[in-house]
Amino acid sequence: MPNYQGDLDAVLRALADPTRRGVVERLAKSPAVVSELAAPFSMALPSLMQHLRVLEDAGLVTSEKRGRVRTVSLRPGALDVLHLWLGEQRTPAEHQADRLAIHLHRTT
Amino acid sequence: MPNYQGDLDAVLRALADPTRRGVVERLAKSPAVVSELAAPFSMALPSLMQHLRVLEDAGLVTSEKRGRVRTVSLRPGALDVLHLWLGEQRTPAEHQADRLAIHLHRTT
Repeated sequence: MPNYQGDLDAVLRALADPTRRGVVERLAKSPAVVSELAAPFSMALPSLMQHLRVLEDAGLVTSEKRGRVRTVSLRPGALDVLHLWLGEQRTPAEHQADRLAIHLHRTT
Repeated sequence: MPNYQGDLDAVLRALADPTRRGVVERLAKSPAVVSELAAPFSMALPSLMQHLRVLEDAGLVTSEKRGRVRTVSLRPGALDVLHLWLGEQRTPAEHQADRLAIHLHRTT
């Protein structure tokens, strides 16, 4: 990872907006064309395109244009950087709870 | 959770800054007094206090003043809202990988 902190900044900033989170939530199910993505948000297409650009710059989505139709996909592993950071923030109490859960699993 | 989306906005925005993430990373280990938190960042104390206020407003940290010393702690479950959201974004491919891993675990 060449710039873990910079990637995290961009991913977190991109996700701090409810419209952009809505787009990511939709794309986690399957790729979608831009008009489909726009439908649930009462938003002009240029505004949505701007949100898509932020998501693309953060490495969260990719898009491909065929003819007049642009299809947007969640980039595989897009949220890994965030999973990784969250995993690192486990507190001593959480680690202890993990060990207890493993112990209970083994002994029951 | 009275306002899941609003909480997420605030948590993500608060964490999108490397100094504030640094503070959360430090507090995941143990509570700390403000001067300890300031030490690794070459930053004036008022700037750090401003970052702490953002973290406190987002519900990520709590602080307590005794005499002249303010101790800051990570709020238990502070990052739960983010864990929850990330869990919801698992793609069909990731669900399939989970099922495969469970199958392999059971049969080996």
